[in-house]
Amino acid sequence: MTTHLQVIVLNGGSSSGKSGIARCLQAVLPDPWLSVGIDGLVDSLPPSLKEPGDGIGFAPDGEVSVGPRFRALEQAWMTGVAAMARAGARVIVDDVFLGGAASQERWRTALAGLEVLWVGVRCEARVAAGREVVRGDRQRGMAESQAALVHQGVAYDLEVDTTRTESLDCARTIAARVG
Amino acid sequence: MTTHLQVIVLNGGSSSGKSGIARCLQAVLPDPWLSVGIDGLVDSLPPSLKEPGDGIGFAPDGEVSVGPRFRALEQAWMTGVAAMARAGARVIVDDVFLGGAASQERWRTALAGLEVLWVGVRCEARVAAGREVVRGDRQRGMAESQAALVHQGVAYDLEVDTTRTESLDCARTIAARVG
Amino acid sequence: MTTHLQVIVLNGGSSSGKSGIARCLQAVLPDPWLSVGIDGLVDSLPPSLKEPGDGIGFAPDGEVSVGPRFRALEQAWMTGVAAMARAGARVIVDDVFLGGAASQERWRTALAGLEVLWVGVRCEARVAAGREVVRGDRQRGMAESQAALVHQGVAYDLEVDTTRTESLDCARTIAARVG
Amino acid sequence: MTTHLQVIVLNGGSSSGKSGIARCLQAVLPDPWLSVGIDGLVDSLPPSLKEPGDGIGFAPDGEVSVGPRFRALEQAWMTGVAAMARAGARVIVDDVFLGGAASQERWRTALAGLEVLWVGVRCEARVAAGREVVRGDRQRGMAESQAALVHQGVAYDLEVDTTRTESLDCARTIAARVG
Repeated sequence: MTTHLQVIVLNGGSSSGKSGIARCLQAVLPDPWLSVGIDGLVDSLPPSLKEPGDGIGFAPDGEVSVGPRFRALEQAWMTGVAAMARAGARVIVDDVFLGGAASQERWRTALAGLEVLWVGVRCEARVAAGREVVRGDRQRGMAESQAALVHQGVAYDLEVDTTRTESLDCARTIAARVG
Repeated sequence: MTTHLQVIVLNGGSSSGKSGIARCLQAVLPDPWLSVGIDGLVDSLPPSLKEPGDGIGFAPDGEVSVGPRFRALEQAWMTGVAAMARAGARVIVDDVFLGGAASQERWRTALAGLEVLWVGVRCEARVAAGREVVRGDRQRGMAESQAALVHQGVAYDLEVDTTRTESLDCARTIAARVG
Repeated sequence: MTTHLQVIVLNGGSSSGKSGIARCLQAVLPDPWLSVGIDGLVDSLPPSLKEPGDGIGFAPDGEVSVGPRFRALEQAWMTGVAAMARAGARVIVDDVFLGGAASQERWRTALAGLEVLWVGVRCEARVAAGREVVRGDRQRGMAESQAALVHQGVAYDLEVDTTRTESLDCARTIAARVG
Repeated sequence: MTTHLQVIVLNGGSSSGKSGIARCLQAVLPDPWLSVGIDGLVDSLPPSLKEPGDGIGFAPDGEVSVGPRFRALEQAWMTGVAAMARAGARVIVDDVFLGGAASQERWRTALAGLEVLWVGVRCEARVAAGREVVRGDRQRGMAESQAALVHQGVAYDLEVDTTRTESLDCARTIAARVG
């Protein structure tokens, strides 16, 4: 039970329910929390970096490729998110650890000195792939290819699973740990 | 002519064309620039702060009110944006200086030590109010009430006016100053 | 088992999962089906009818009120949807029968002579209300107030329940009846 | 001047300003008008028809290709829109006549017997292409390739040009003809 938690990191594959859980956390937590995430970073990129090569690319089979210029901007963004938290904002981060443990290590470095709750958001690949069809706005195949990959070697304080549990209930489980 | 510009701040009233200019800048500038703005901050807020009182409120006449908890998160966000730039990301900021010179002073403090281009985005109130109708997704009245207000006492390196000039041409004028 | 089905009507409360099921049906059915719905109708209204009184109003508690001018346009829209189906388009309709059996009767009249599959989309009020929080873009309270109301007196060919069944699986159940 | 106008058809290339003019018309006309358009039709298609071949395809250079199954659904949609108007709804249609005079002929047949105002929405190719960059959500090249094409052989009651006139002013010019 952390009393001065500053950052909640939600990591999970595409269509696992991270963003919905983030919205629920904002609704149920008594203090105001900002919600930022990888989707917001991608939206803020120039068109030249929303393509494979230097930027982030989404292949027809759902594979995501990441180039050096995207990586550099992502690193600066992580630094900025950490600075928001150090400046007093409580921050929920919603990310996809395409590099598994290596991604976590980069966040760990950026968030050094902050009180962080690491949350794994799991969802069975078959179910996440189905929800990808329901949403209809995501490259098909991402949910399946990321479902297990993003958790490899990652250490969590808490894991939730949206396969058979509603996102709001998952959020309440997380909120109970925020204190 | 700045050779190592790190931040471009676009300030203008609602429906003056700031976000469109930011997108054009991203398309025409040779280096990759991140684009962040006040709309993104509002999206990242919890529902409790998207209301008048503690948060940011949008009255039926277009007046925007800002409460203490919104102000605190906004301050942390500014600090984070500055940290992204210090970490190497070139950043376009798209904001509405509701406090005029006082808003600029807060950004100046946050961005201390960074090379900043201050750009005023003007649009005649009547024309901006018309574009608010065209968009159809904004509280009516904001364009008119903000058109002059947000520029009071603000010092710029450059001003553009979208009243009779296309946003892409305004962006090219700005880009010529980026070097 | 209908071999010449022309219209699939999905009726359910807000946040019951109708639109997601419609997207899944479009993905799994071998023939192309158009998907239209009450949300699209509301989007196509003038601002004057997106308000209580003459139009459709969304109260802070989730109650939806419907005025005479909205009702008239809705009737014309139903007629148009039926005409699309008679002209050869297969159509999935996603609606909220605020009037229960009376709403169905109006659709029945509009769709006279067409082969229709009537599908009830149920979701327990508590779960639908939670999903409303997850989405974050709907007036709170709608899910709860509509969950039972919209099914009163309505006769279905088939009912699905998204409370504990994924939308894609519900869609597959429906698709099996399309033949 | 028509006193019982039932349909306003706005035809223009991508990024010429049709949808904005439609929103303005809804705001300034005293009676309620529904607004429907080709973008709404594309949204209602199954994923299999949002691709070249049978459906509608958007090539990287902005060329739009239309296949037989899209064409068939579009025809049914036109029939449905006409039926809405015959059932009493005033309807603004926002379309892109990729086939020029042939497209108009198809609408003329569908709308037979209705009082229609045919409006050409022009915008110089260079300016429309710039606004495509401003929007940032359209396939680049569409504005340029469609600017002249869609007007070939089309007969109008009224033409407006958004190159140097605000959309709201164009809408007022049109509204003055609605009577």
